[in-house]
Amino acid sequence: MKHGGDLTEAIARHGGDPGSWLDLSTGINPWPWPIPQHLPERAWQCLPSRAESEALLWAARKAYGAPGGAGIAAAAGTQALIQLLPYLAAPGPVAIVGPTYSEHALAWRSAGHPVIAIDDLAVCPPDAAHAVVVNPNNPDGRVTDRAALTRIATQLKERGGWLVVDEAFADVDPAISAVALCPDWPIVILRSFGKFYGLAGLRLGFAVGAPDTIERIAAALGPWPCSGPALLIGTAALGDQAWADHTRSKLEQQARKLDKVLANAGFAIAGGTLLFRLARHPHASRLHAALAQRHIWCRSFDWADDLLRFGLPSDAAGLDRLAAALSD
Amino acid sequence: MKHGGDLTEAIARHGGDPGSWLDLSTGINPWPWPIPQHLPERAWQCLPSRAESEALLWAARKAYGAPGGAGIAAAAGTQALIQLLPYLAAPGPVAIVGPTYSEHALAWRSAGHPVIAIDDLAVCPPDAAHAVVVNPNNPDGRVTDRAALTRIATQLKERGGWLVVDEAFADVDPAISAVALCPDWPIVILRSFGKFYGLAGLRLGFAVGAPDTIERIAAALGPWPCSGPALLIGTAALGDQAWADHTRSKLEQQARKLDKVLANAGFAIAGGTLLFRLARHPHASRLHAALAQRHIWCRSFDWADDLLRFGLPSDAAGLDRLAAALSD
Repeated sequence: MKHGGDLTEAIARHGGDPGSWLDLSTGINPWPWPIPQHLPERAWQCLPSRAESEALLWAARKAYGAPGGAGIAAAAGTQALIQLLPYLAAPGPVAIVGPTYSEHALAWRSAGHPVIAIDDLAVCPPDAAHAVVVNPNNPDGRVTDRAALTRIATQLKERGGWLVVDEAFADVDPAISAVALCPDWPIVILRSFGKFYGLAGLRLGFAVGAPDTIERIAAALGPWPCSGPALLIGTAALGDQAWADHTRSKLEQQARKLDKVLANAGFAIAGGTLLFRLARHPHASRLHAALAQRHIWCRSFDWADDLLRFGLPSDAAGLDRLAAALSD
Repeated sequence: MKHGGDLTEAIARHGGDPGSWLDLSTGINPWPWPIPQHLPERAWQCLPSRAESEALLWAARKAYGAPGGAGIAAAAGTQALIQLLPYLAAPGPVAIVGPTYSEHALAWRSAGHPVIAIDDLAVCPPDAAHAVVVNPNNPDGRVTDRAALTRIATQLKERGGWLVVDEAFADVDPAISAVALCPDWPIVILRSFGKFYGLAGLRLGFAVGAPDTIERIAAALGPWPCSGPALLIGTAALGDQAWADHTRSKLEQQARKLDKVLANAGFAIAGGTLLFRLARHPHASRLHAALAQRHIWCRSFDWADDLLRFGLPSDAAGLDRLAAALSD
């Protein structure tokens, strides 16, 4: 299983249909921002206008606390930006702090950059032209602090390289964000809309960085990278501060409940964010298979046979179903 | 005005709001495929599944008549593919048949390819590694026949290059399509969903070509390039043959009516497709300004001061409004 969130393979192997599975394989908020029943027809029919794009970028800038001197660009999901950045980056090796979301290494390698796997940003080798860190990291939730980011950004600036900071899960704790470091350093920050706002199918993500870098990214994305619905829904949701605050505390409560279920089943919580929990168990592989037979889908990892990652069940019934399956 | 379909600039200059303008600046079908009132929530909330992606590609393959040996990939609009192809293409100059949609030249130039402007595919110079032709062409509707495409594809194959055929407006006359030439030639065909289906805001487009080329394109796009709504709506609309047939004849009738309005106002029809008409008038620039003052927006061109392009008004009132404004 390369990614979470795709039950196609699980269903092929274990039967059932998407509705009957308890899908805990993603880090997507199970309580999405409430999209309006009716979107205006022009959102579907017309090419997004410049005015609509600017409204979205303005809302994102505010939600993410991007300083005035930083640039910001929108894409059809941060994945589109992950794919693009290696083609725009100067030639040279990239150091990627891992284990982490595997698509970063894939994308840089595909674009011809040698990839150096490191386990801490502090040990970034001198021959790396670029560095990538997911912050907080997926799946362990590890946070790289701003001093460490600044240190490596200073080095990469001398080498003409970029520090890519993937803040896909930073919405749950905005204090983690390094947006304040733009535009002084060659930092490109990626922000995912779909995870925290629970609307991964919408495909919306952002890059924040120095204006000249962001201009190059926007030019390479070309006109109309985002759908009309993404522009309208993104603008409204990113402006909904009350929903964001309420959601953070709701996620916190549910994450604590999930931790308790996992602890009761003999797991040790090994990390995570409020959108997923990483848990250790000596029989993790066996438990993953047993849960799948009961149509509960979580993430396993090819680099660790004692770890599983669980997204948040959306309700008490989901928590109970997981608890019951784990106690079988 | 670089593109059609964005009233932001027109409104800034002439006032009004999007609803009060008669926007004839695009080549988008004014009668969109009817999207369902309620999309399933998972289309917004979940990452699109492999099963959903495969269903879309299957529907597109059938609608576009792609032969079994061809590959097909979906993106968030053909614009995303126009942006991407130059980064994947072998180094070397590209010959672009023009005047045409200006984004092709922009994208190839941005990715470092010298651009050679040619006015007919038959005069493609021997130093061009790649060629791009929009077929039927925008804005003049000129059709390049399959023999001419095969001839140049044969030459480019020897040079390791690509022939990109942008069939953005081929849905109105499927006989034009060169999909049958894949997979024998290094041809990449671009198909736009939003124009013929009247859903440009959805952002959906396709590349059809030799399987190895399409595999590279799909890998560079990465996972989940299209939104959940685009997958569901695209699959349903592309499978709706009755709607497509009915729409073609409806567009044909409206295009004839538009031609009559333009001819009555002293324009000579210079070309176009069933989704837009290109019309010549000695005072085209003055008429463009006069129409804008009456909040009617059509396309003008920086390379010809006697040409205007008109999209189809959606109803008789729109035709009458245009006729009245032109007779003022």
